[in-house]
This record gives sequence, C-alpha cells and structure tokens, in this order.
Amino acid sequence: MSYRPGRHFLQIPGPTNVPDRVLRAMDGPTIDHRGPDFQALGKRVLSGIRTIFQTKHPVIIYPASGTGAWEAALVNTLSPGDLVLMYETGHFASLWKKLAERLDLKTEFIGGDWRHGADPAAIGERLAADTAHTIKAVCVVHNETSTGCVSPIADVRKAIDAANHPALLMVDTISSLGSIDYRHDEWGVDVTVGGSQKGLMLPPGLSFNALSEKAIEASKSSRLPKSYWAWDEMLPANANGFFPYTPATNLLYGLDAAIEMLHEEGLDNVFARHQRHGAATRAAVAAWGLDVLCVEPKHHSGSLTAVLMPGEKGADALRKTILERFDMSLGAGLSKVADKIFRIGHLGDFNDLMLVGTLGGVEMGLRIAGVRHEAGGVEAAMEVLASATEGQAQQAAE
Amino acid sequence: MSYRPGRHFLQIPGPTNVPDRVLRAMDGPTIDHRGPDFQALGKRVLSGIRTIFQTKHPVIIYPASGTGAWEAALVNTLSPGDLVLMYETGHFASLWKKLAERLDLKTEFIGGDWRHGADPAAIGERLAADTAHTIKAVCVVHNETSTGCVSPIADVRKAIDAANHPALLMVDTISSLGSIDYRHDEWGVDVTVGGSQKGLMLPPGLSFNALSEKAIEASKSSRLPKSYWAWDEMLPANANGFFPYTPATNLLYGLDAAIEMLHEEGLDNVFARHQRHGAATRAAVAAWGLDVLCVEPKHHSGSLTAVLMPGEKGADALRKTILERFDMSLGAGLSKVADKIFRIGHLGDFNDLMLVGTLGGVEMGLRIAGVRHEAGGVEAAMEVLASATEGQAQQAAE
Amino acid sequence: MSYRPGRHFLQIPGPTNVPDRVLRAMDGPTIDHRGPDFQALGKRVLSGIRTIFQTKHPVIIYPASGTGAWEAALVNTLSPGDLVLMYETGHFASLWKKLAERLDLKTEFIGGDWRHGADPAAIGERLAADTAHTIKAVCVVHNETSTGCVSPIADVRKAIDAANHPALLMVDTISSLGSIDYRHDEWGVDVTVGGSQKGLMLPPGLSFNALSEKAIEASKSSRLPKSYWAWDEMLPANANGFFPYTPATNLLYGLDAAIEMLHEEGLDNVFARHQRHGAATRAAVAAWGLDVLCVEPKHHSGSLTAVLMPGEKGADALRKTILERFDMSLGAGLSKVADKIFRIGHLGDFNDLMLVGTLGGVEMGLRIAGVRHEAGGVEAAMEVLASATEGQAQQAAE
Amino acid sequence: MSYRPGRHFLQIPGPTNVPDRVLRAMDGPTIDHRGPDFQALGKRVLSGIRTIFQTKHPVIIYPASGTGAWEAALVNTLSPGDLVLMYETGHFASLWKKLAERLDLKTEFIGGDWRHGADPAAIGERLAADTAHTIKAVCVVHNETSTGCVSPIADVRKAIDAANHPALLMVDTISSLGSIDYRHDEWGVDVTVGGSQKGLMLPPGLSFNALSEKAIEASKSSRLPKSYWAWDEMLPANANGFFPYTPATNLLYGLDAAIEMLHEEGLDNVFARHQRHGAATRAAVAAWGLDVLCVEPKHHSGSLTAVLMPGEKGADALRKTILERFDMSLGAGLSKVADKIFRIGHLGDFNDLMLVGTLGGVEMGLRIAGVRHEAGGVEAAMEVLASATEGQAQQAAE
Repeated sequence: MSYRPGRHFLQIPGPTNVPDRVLRAMDGPTIDHRGPDFQALGKRVLSGIRTIFQTKHPVIIYPASGTGAWEAALVNTLSPGDLVLMYETGHFASLWKKLAERLDLKTEFIGGDWRHGADPAAIGERLAADTAHTIKAVCVVHNETSTGCVSPIADVRKAIDAANHPALLMVDTISSLGSIDYRHDEWGVDVTVGGSQKGLMLPPGLSFNALSEKAIEASKSSRLPKSYWAWDEMLPANANGFFPYTPATNLLYGLDAAIEMLHEEGLDNVFARHQRHGAATRAAVAAWGLDVLCVEPKHHSGSLTAVLMPGEKGADALRKTILERFDMSLGAGLSKVADKIFRIGHLGDFNDLMLVGTLGGVEMGLRIAGVRHEAGGVEAAMEVLASATEGQAQQAAE
Repeated sequence: MSYRPGRHFLQIPGPTNVPDRVLRAMDGPTIDHRGPDFQALGKRVLSGIRTIFQTKHPVIIYPASGTGAWEAALVNTLSPGDLVLMYETGHFASLWKKLAERLDLKTEFIGGDWRHGADPAAIGERLAADTAHTIKAVCVVHNETSTGCVSPIADVRKAIDAANHPALLMVDTISSLGSIDYRHDEWGVDVTVGGSQKGLMLPPGLSFNALSEKAIEASKSSRLPKSYWAWDEMLPANANGFFPYTPATNLLYGLDAAIEMLHEEGLDNVFARHQRHGAATRAAVAAWGLDVLCVEPKHHSGSLTAVLMPGEKGADALRKTILERFDMSLGAGLSKVADKIFRIGHLGDFNDLMLVGTLGGVEMGLRIAGVRHEAGGVEAAMEVLASATEGQAQQAAE
Repeated sequence: MSYRPGRHFLQIPGPTNVPDRVLRAMDGPTIDHRGPDFQALGKRVLSGIRTIFQTKHPVIIYPASGTGAWEAALVNTLSPGDLVLMYETGHFASLWKKLAERLDLKTEFIGGDWRHGADPAAIGERLAADTAHTIKAVCVVHNETSTGCVSPIADVRKAIDAANHPALLMVDTISSLGSIDYRHDEWGVDVTVGGSQKGLMLPPGLSFNALSEKAIEASKSSRLPKSYWAWDEMLPANANGFFPYTPATNLLYGLDAAIEMLHEEGLDNVFARHQRHGAATRAAVAAWGLDVLCVEPKHHSGSLTAVLMPGEKGADALRKTILERFDMSLGAGLSKVADKIFRIGHLGDFNDLMLVGTLGGVEMGLRIAGVRHEAGGVEAAMEVLASATEGQAQQAAE
Repeated sequence: MSYRPGRHFLQIPGPTNVPDRVLRAMDGPTIDHRGPDFQALGKRVLSGIRTIFQTKHPVIIYPASGTGAWEAALVNTLSPGDLVLMYETGHFASLWKKLAERLDLKTEFIGGDWRHGADPAAIGERLAADTAHTIKAVCVVHNETSTGCVSPIADVRKAIDAANHPALLMVDTISSLGSIDYRHDEWGVDVTVGGSQKGLMLPPGLSFNALSEKAIEASKSSRLPKSYWAWDEMLPANANGFFPYTPATNLLYGLDAAIEMLHEEGLDNVFARHQRHGAATRAAVAAWGLDVLCVEPKHHSGSLTAVLMPGEKGADALRKTILERFDMSLGAGLSKVADKIFRIGHLGDFNDLMLVGTLGGVEMGLRIAGVRHEAGGVEAAMEVLASATEGQAQQAAE
C-alpha cells in the first residue's frame, strides 16, 4: 500500500496494538539462554505469568502461536482415541475440534448458534449421561473471538462437579487473557490455553498452558506422542528459570514488560476498562440501529464486538472501504458468518479516544458504503464514556 | 503519572506525534561525522530539505530548537541598532520581537488583535513611509502557533515590492513547514525559519534557515557577532555534505526519513490533508456553539485550531480534565489569551480517525467540565470527513 | 548482574549477535495477518527464504524454535514405528534421536566419536544392508553445534543413491544455514531443518522445513498425528502469502531484513567470511598449544570452534572467569564433553575486529584462569586475518 | 558504502558508541514539553547532570552541540572587547579562541607544542603581570581531543588564586566529562563546558554550562548580546523542571538513561576504566615502537590516544585502509598535525574486548599499509588488561 499518514487503527480482535514500551523492550540484544542474565529473566516471567492467569500452578510458555498451545493441552493429557467433549461457540471452537481430530482424538460437539456462550446445563447433562466416563476432557472457549460471546467458565466447572464427572476441563482464553476476568485456580480449570497477541499486548509468537495438579497427573499416563510440547521436559527446566530448548528470548523481554504494565494498571482496572469499552461499543451499535451478534447480555465480550450487517450489503466490502479510506483494520466474519458480520476489536493497549476514533471510522464507513444505519453512534458511545465514572460505566455494562 | 493504557493523544500544536518510522530511523548507531557514510547522509538531507521549503537555495540545518533559527536569521543579516519591522500576530511574533531586542536590534511592532493574520496593506503602508530605508527587515510569522491564523506571505512580498523597499523579508514557518503550503522561492522570502518538531514529524532539536541570494549578500556586511549560527562557516562545509561542528547525527537520520515520507505522501496531499482536518475541526467547534479564535476564514490554519472558552470557565481547567480523564494534551492559551482559549493541534503524522478521537476527547471534556456547549461536534466533523473526497473537502475548507 | 560497560560479546554458537537493522525491523507495529500489507510481507519472506536454502521448493516457516522444525520434519513424513537411521555427530544429533523416539519412531544410531562429521561410507553400507527398505529416513546434522564438525551432505546423498535406497534424507542446518555453504536442491535433500537464531542473525522463535517433491509425496501417506506442524495446511495458505494460524509477525519483519542483508553481502561472501574466521580461530588455538575438538580438517566448521581443555582445569570455570571478567559468553561442552571443551561461536553478524576481541578474551581468560597455554594466539589469528585477501584466506582455510 | 557485517568500530574520540539502552530510551514518543510528565523528566535530568559535573550549582542544558556551549559560556559572562586568556593545548583550544574572536572578544594565547597539557605556572605568571586585571577570563581545555593531553585544572585554579586575579576560569570538558575525573566545585571552576556525545554516551545534540556563583554574578553585567544562550531565561524556567523554549526532548530521555548508567557503574569505576584503557593502549603503542603524541605521562588521557606516524607514510591513508578493511573509524590529525597522527578513541561505552579488537585493527592496519612497526602491540595491551586487577591497572597507569 502507498504511504498513509498517522497511525493505523488495528481494531481486529488480535493481534492488538503493541505498546511502544513492549516493542522497545523486545528491541534489545538477544542474550545467552543458558546464562545468569537469562535465568533471572526466565524466573521473572515464569512467576509473573501466573499472576495473569490468577494461578499458583505452573504456566508453560511456548515459543509458538496459540494454536500450538491448543495442541499442547491435548497431547500432554490424552491418549489416542480418547473422547473430548467440545462446545460449538463459534469458529475457533470448531478449529480446536478439527485440531483434536487430526491428533487421533475422538470429539463430540455440543452444537451452538454462534450467538451465545457455552451453556453449562447442556454440558452437565451430557456428562451425567456419560456414566462410563468415556469423555476424558471438556473443552470450552472462554471468549469466542469469532463471535464476541463469553462462556461462563465457573458455571461449567460447577456443572462438571455436579455431574461428578472426572473429565479434565480445558479452556481457551486466547482472546480474554489480560482483558476479561479469568481465574484459573478459583474456577478449577485443568488446562488454560493462552496467547501473547491479544490482552497481553505482545506480538504473536508466545503461547501458554496453565496447569492444574490433576492435569499434571493426567500427563503422566497420556500416550499421545509429543516432544516439543512435552510438559515433562518443560517443568524441570523451568524450575530453574531455563527452557529445554531455545526460547523466544526477545518475546520474553516483551512479556516481562507487559506483565509489569498490566500490574501497574491493576488487573481489576484492566478488566473494568474492557467492559466499559464493550458497553460503549454496544451503545454505538444500538444507535446505528444495528444488531450485535451475541444476543445474551451476560455473555457480551469486553474484548470485541461482532456486528451483524443489515440488508444485502456484504461486511467484507464495508471492511475494505474502511481500510482504504480510514486506514483501520476490522475483523472479518469467519466461516458460517463470513461476510455477514464485522468484528470490532477493543482489547489490549487501548483507551477511550482510540475507541472514539474506531467507532468514528465504522460510522463513516457505514455512510460511505451506503449501509442502512442511523447516525449518532459515536455520540451514543461518548455518552457512555463521559457520563459515568469507570466504576459506574462498568455497572452500566452489566 | 501512573500507568495509562493506549496511546497518548499529543494534540498540542507541536511537538507532534513522531511516527514510528522516524523514531526507528533515529534509533541507529551514531556514526563518524567526518566519514564517507555521513557525507552521503549530509548531502541527502541538505538537498532534501530544500524540497520541503520549495527552494533551490541553500538551507542551513542547526542542531538547535526553532528559537535558535530565529536568532540565526537576525544575527547573520543585521547589524547592531538596525530597525526591524515585525507584525504582532500573536505570542510567537512577540517572542521573536523580544529576542531581536536582546540582540541589540531596534524593533517596531505593527499591532494586531491576535485574531487575524498579518495585514500586507499595513506593512506596505509603513514601508512606503520609510523613505530613508531605516527598516532593514520585515519579520512575519506564517502560521501563528498561538492563535491558528495564517498570514498571506505572498501578499506581504507584493506589498514590500510595491513600496519599492529594500528590507529583507524573514518568515517564521515553524508550525507551517510540511503542513501548510509554503514557497520560499516563489514568494520571494529572504530568510525562512523552520523547526523539526511540527509538520516535519521529528522530535525537537533541529531548526532551519532557508536563504535567498539577497540574504547571503546581506550576511557579508552584517556586524552582529555570531559563530555557532554563522552561515559563512556552514555554507562551505555543507557544500561537501559536512558541518563545521558536530551535527545532531541521529536527528538527521530522522530528518532523512521524514523528508522521504513527506514525498511518499506528496506535498500537495499533505497540505490538503491539513486543510481538510482544519475544516472538520472548525465544523465541530461550530456545532458545539463555540468560536474559533481566528476570525478571518482565509486565515484559518490547517495546523491547529484555537477555540475560545465560553462563559466563565477557564481553559486550563478544561485541559487538565481532558489530560487526566482522556490522556490527551491540548495547547494552552499563551500570554494575552492565557486560560481564555485552548488549542487543538491537528498537524504532522495525523489522520481522520485520530482527529475523530481528538474531537471526541474535547467534546467529552467539555461535558465533564461543565462547559456550556451543544453536543454533536464529532458528528459534524465526521460529516466533513466522510461526505467529501479529499479534493472536495479541501474546496469546502476554502 | 551489575552494570557492565560496552557491548556484551555473545560468542556462543547461537543465538548470535542480532544486528541493529534486524532488531529495528522487528520493532514496528504488528499488523493484521489477514490484510494486504501482511500478504506482501508473507510472499516476500516465503520466496526470499528459498534463496537462503538454495532451493526452488517450498520452505515452511514455523513460529517455533528449531526443535519444533526437527519434530515437523519427522511427523509430516513418517508413520508410527518407522525406522530412522541417524548419525551420532554429537549432542544435537543425540537430541534429535531422542525426540524421534518420543514420537513413536524407531531409531538406529551410527556411532561417532564427536570429533568427526558423518561418514557417508558408513551410511551407504548400512543402507545397502537394508534390502527390505525398513529404514524410512536418514537424518544427519550438517554442522554439529556441539562439536564444530561439518558433515559432507553431498556425499551422504551419493551414498544413499549408490545404495539405491528410497529413504528420505533429512538434514539439520540449524547452525550452518546462512553461514556455511548449503544447497538443498543440488544436494538432493528431502527435508532441511533450519532455525532463525544463528546465521540468519535473528532472535530465536522461527524455524524452517525446506521440502522436496519426494518429501511432499511422503507427507501424503504419513500417519503420525500432526496439526500445528502440518504441511498440508501450511502449503495452500502460503501459496497466497498467508499462514493457517497467526504467524510471528514481528519476527517475520526481522527475517525480511535478514534475507536482504545476506544478499547485500552476497551468500558466497558470507560463506567465505565464516571460513576465514574459522581458519583464524584455529590458528589462535594452535598458537595457544591447544587442540580443536574436530580432528578432520575438511570437517572444520566456519560457524564455531570447540576447544579441548588441556590438563585438569574445567572448561566451565574458564567460561565463568571470562564472563565475569570480560563480559563474553562462550558455549559450554554438552553431555559427553561437558566441562572438557568450550565453544567459540564466530557466526552471524560478525567481523574481523569482533573476532580479535573474542580471541583476546579467550587468551586473557586462559591466562587469568591459570590454564596451561602459550601466548600469541591473537597475534596468530591476526596473521591470518591481515596477511590474506578474503579470497586467499578462504583458500588457506581449506 | 556496501554492506559490512558485524558492528562498526567507532573509535574516534567522539561521538562514541551509543549504548542500546540510551538509543532505546530516546526511541519513545515525544511528549508535551509543558506537561507534568515532562516536568518530572526535566527535574530529574537537571538534578542528575550536576552529579556528573560534581557540582551543587546549576547546570544549563542546551539543545545544541558543544560549540554552542563554548559560545554560551562567553556571551553570558563577558562584554564586547573583553580580553580572554586562552591556552594553546591543540586544535580545539584554537577553535575556541577563533570563536571568541568572532564574538568581539579580544584573545591572548599562551602558546603550546600540542604535546603537553596547559602549564599552570605560565598562566599564573601571565595573570600576575596583569595588575590592571584586563584579563576577564582564563579558558582551558581539560582534555584536548586533538592531542590526548589532559590539563591540570586544579593547579590552574591554584595559579589563578596565587596571582590573586579575579578572572573567571572556564574549562572545556567536552571529551573528558564522564570519562576523566572532573570536579567543577572542588576545583573552583566558574563555567564548565560539556557535550553529550563523548563520555555521556549520547548522540550529539546536547551541551552544557555548569556554573558557579561568580559566573552567575558576572552574567548580570555581561553586555554581549544573547538570547538562545541566555542563562537568565534558562535558570528560572529550569527551577521548575521546564525550559524557556522547546528542549530536545528525546535526547533528554537518553540523558536520563545515561546518567543512571554512569551511576550504576559508579563514577570512580568509570574513571578507572578509562585510565586502564589508556594504559593498555599506550602499552600497545610502545610495543609497536611508535610514539604517543602526548609526551608528559601525567598528562596522558584516558579518553583517547594520539599516535605519531613513523617515517613518510601519511596517517590518513592508514585510517582509510583500516576503515575499508576492518570497518573501524579512527580520529584524524587536525590542523598542525594533519596526516601526522591518528587518534584512537577509547572512551564512552567501552570495554576490554572492544579495546582488544580496536588495537587489533590498528595493528593489522599498520601491517597492511606497510607502516614500519613491531608486531606484538595487542599482546602487550592484553598483558596490561589481564595481569592487573582494575585497581592495580589503574596504579600502573599513573
């Protein structure tokens, strides 16, 4: 593309806008990954990342994308032919299912309409029926990046417990970690999968498995082949701050900075900010007379908002107009909802005025593309942003 | 200050938002300023900067702020006791006058109300009366950063010529260079003063004197003492791409990148973009029911817009609210208009969505601070930004 | 560690000193990995990386360390229980073997003494005996990072062909790619494994599989489970410049710069430089009266030199002295040769004066640590570096 | 120049190798120079820079090169026609004299042979003869960058006091500040001139005036015209952490980091390191059978070493050979000693192995250029570097 003045608005639901401080942290000389300076760094990030997952258990850091951490969660705990119960929250749940099948696992999908989070009751019911305990794991996406619906993980845990079922609970938090409240320990999750390029404000290239004792125990009898992803090589090396193979050192510099920044803002403030931005975005969508894809208010995401296109116009043409005219990237509808929705990412290193600019770009794009809508979305969002304290805005959003 | 998520909105009328590409260009190892690599760089920037001033004559690059280039313009061409005619467009014209007086020059001010650009007729009249040619130089600020009024330099030249007066014409373009059309040669300016931290999108630390043959001739008989600023040491060294003393090498790396970027966008596109953003900003101000300080439409600036506060509330309290609540810096009213206006910078590396965010911050700030205004400013600005092609928007702005 | 002035000397055999230009390229905003700007980048790096492997066939780029690319080579081409013939050149060959075993492959090792490259005759002999073609792949490390011995890959190919054996040839070039001449197509390799953090001058976090048609064909019937590593998802996405999952965008920025830099220097010049530095280093070792681990001159590496400790003193204590006193990291002896050798990395973004400093640090370290040696190693290395043109030095090194 | 692998060796006596940490500190967004974040920065650097000059008095920070700070020292304290006594230590003392003359000052030079520091006795004698106190200031260069001779400032102070003369003492520390022990207060200096691009490890673009009460008093009656350099505008603004005109914000970020780094190492350690490197360099020169320009051991510089060329060969051809063959920049002989000497800078962010590489480059250059010399210089330098603890090496150097 030719030269575009000013900053690009990267409003896809990840990768997100990487703050200068993280980029600059990454822009230092690579060091010996077997030396004392690295060891100090390794200990710091391995300990720090636990605070983001809100866990006291080990968190594995992979030099890999989030997809790798999906694979790692499965191959470390399961054996060929094991049955995994998954929940169709949207495109990414479907991709995780497809991945499981490639790994010689059997999968079963609880169908969804892509407009709700997972239903704990449906999961509980299926588990209760599985008296033989054929199901070895339940996999749920916390924040479905393709739809903007959040699943109630604590309730899923309760449903599993109520069914008295021994299945492992695995949760994908790739687009919620560091932006939507998530509690690995308190909610009793066995493996949480995370990635670097969303709420953690890093470039892609790191991903995570947060573990439970039960998951570690399961890994001892797991028979799926594994080496790169193998926890049993990671854990002993990590104990000293090192890694069994060469880690992505410069991304770890960035992770170190990002963890520090999240704590400077305060995790609770981070979560409230995302909720507030979700509420302001939905106010804009409502003012435009458009519909948010996620229909259940309690499942609305603070990370992104998917908007249904009205009438006949395709969402991809709108996104192209906005990219060319206003230098803003929005997320596409994927698979089932391709061209039917566009997704506004409002997560990561983001603030009120960036959101106003973002919504302004959408509103002007709707106008230029001739999409049926009412004006006034930006004003409605500003009403939310300006009229409430952060705390009040948060409540309004609930 | 504590941690603030997202990007700061630096909407003072300079320093402006420095693009990543310029920052990264500056972030390289300093090199030998007497070696062949430097020579290639020196030749490139000394030649490139001429294209920005639209001149074929030499441009001096100082390792100094713009204030230094003001001083340089005077000490290279004038002698102790010389009379300089200056025009009171606002605070910076006043500062330049004060500086001239510290240098043992006599000054005379044509008074202004800070709400207009310079009046060529008044200048012509004064020069016509100066039959003894006591006035040695006429100094005008092209874009008065304290008010957002642009002076018609081509007309000032015509007025001088019409008066048949030999005075040198010196123009300050610190906040217009690289954002508002400016033609050193075509408009017959003798010394143009520029700085790095506005339309050139660089950090502060470089400033410029663009010369004419008449100015160079004048410098030969000038008797004000000078060394650091002396053109007669700069020009022969510059001829080979070098400098008489150590230059600010890393800022020159940035200048090299910035010149390239301005040409990638195209100077005409750069100017049109700034005009369009000025028009959109004024549409917002009008919708808020507020007044722009600059009252003459043909003097309206594409670099910044100064807004008069209505009622009793002070502008500085509003700016403080906006900084604390929305992490945006706006320009203060200076001297005569202190606390009575605030200034919105919309120059440099800037685009439509950044402007929407900026105006959104102002509108929400007005609301939170309880300043009397109508809502709808952002919508009005978007109307301008979305309804017109860039070319049409430009015409609308005229 | 407390503050150390000057630059750290990172003379382990990788990660290597990352040049500023690569770091700065990586230090840019992450972009939408589904958008047009990314597509242009993707096409550029996917095409450019082929030139480094000297292949016209596809090269897969993983967001992963080199260990991941080892795994990818095996899981894409083989099936559970397949037999792989590997050659014990040193520690990394042993690790690759261990990895294969974790993936449910059978392995057979041709033993080595860690002081030679692989012996093509031994490989040919073993394959000739395998008339049932039980062996599905032959795996050889090109430049064994733990010993500094280079294996003659072209001759291995000839031996396989002479045995008329259908096994795939897989080669690890992690520490030779971009530093020692390597020709994927000409030498008939089926899968070449590479990594980013050595001759490519990048931080760790990217790794590669260069393919052959035969390898792609084999992948169609391979039954090892795979998803993250699956070529069949990578190849169709790569055809358009995209990736099936989020790539490590910022590392790809760096790769783009690194490929450009290797071609600016010229691959032949890059290889000659490394050979010359190997020769100079061995001259220093000889002058010290010490022995190089690799005993076969034609197997000497241009990437690194492993030096045997004389007498009773341990190599690790020497390395510690050198790190603390001179801020230089050297490679440790691994496994069998732990504490018996130290390794000097002289690969990547490196030049004559950096090598002189490196060897000076070793020589002063030997002295301070009280290791039996002769002085004069640095002078001997300078003799090689100064007395010969680059071309002559290259011949001297052969 | 075409692509050169590895790091350039920037061994001129300034600008010096800028550490990554300083470059990265500078590579952040420019901020509002009137806002609270800047104020905190301003206070920190204005306070921190005093510790480097070892003064409790104000230090002025100019957005300008060192030449500007020379000018500032004079125009703030003197009046037209005042007589300044200067000491011809070398090229830079001569340039300062020429600058003074351009500013309408009278100058008198105590001649020197460019091979010694200033002689306090000669200064004292001249002042004693000036019973009318016509001399208003004594100007001495602490470390003469063109020769590598250090002048004994404390003794100059004593000589002035012994002569009971009221002249101001002004000292240029451009190439000694942050590398050679310098005590503004203890040694009773009135104006110390410094620059950013040497021991402070910054790019060029900042310079300094450290003041005394007597200097401030003198400024009140000084009649040389001034504005940009005027202390009376700087001091009140600085009192609140601000500047009277736009400061070079990003260079101040770097200064902030550099001050922190100097204190992390410890100023005494910094000084000892430079002395040690001077001693090692002179050991190499002696082993080569060449002569150091500075003949008085107690005047030997820790910042740089100037080496006399033997025989007929010119130093500039040698420097060119070294630049082309080994990518190292050395300092040229200036003016009187042009082509007769070359200067090795060993100041700033520098360590033992960088010095070994530097001296290796010189030794190989001498050999390739066919300059008469003995081999063994690097070995002699390593003897100094390795045989002594830092403390012992320091004593050996005295």
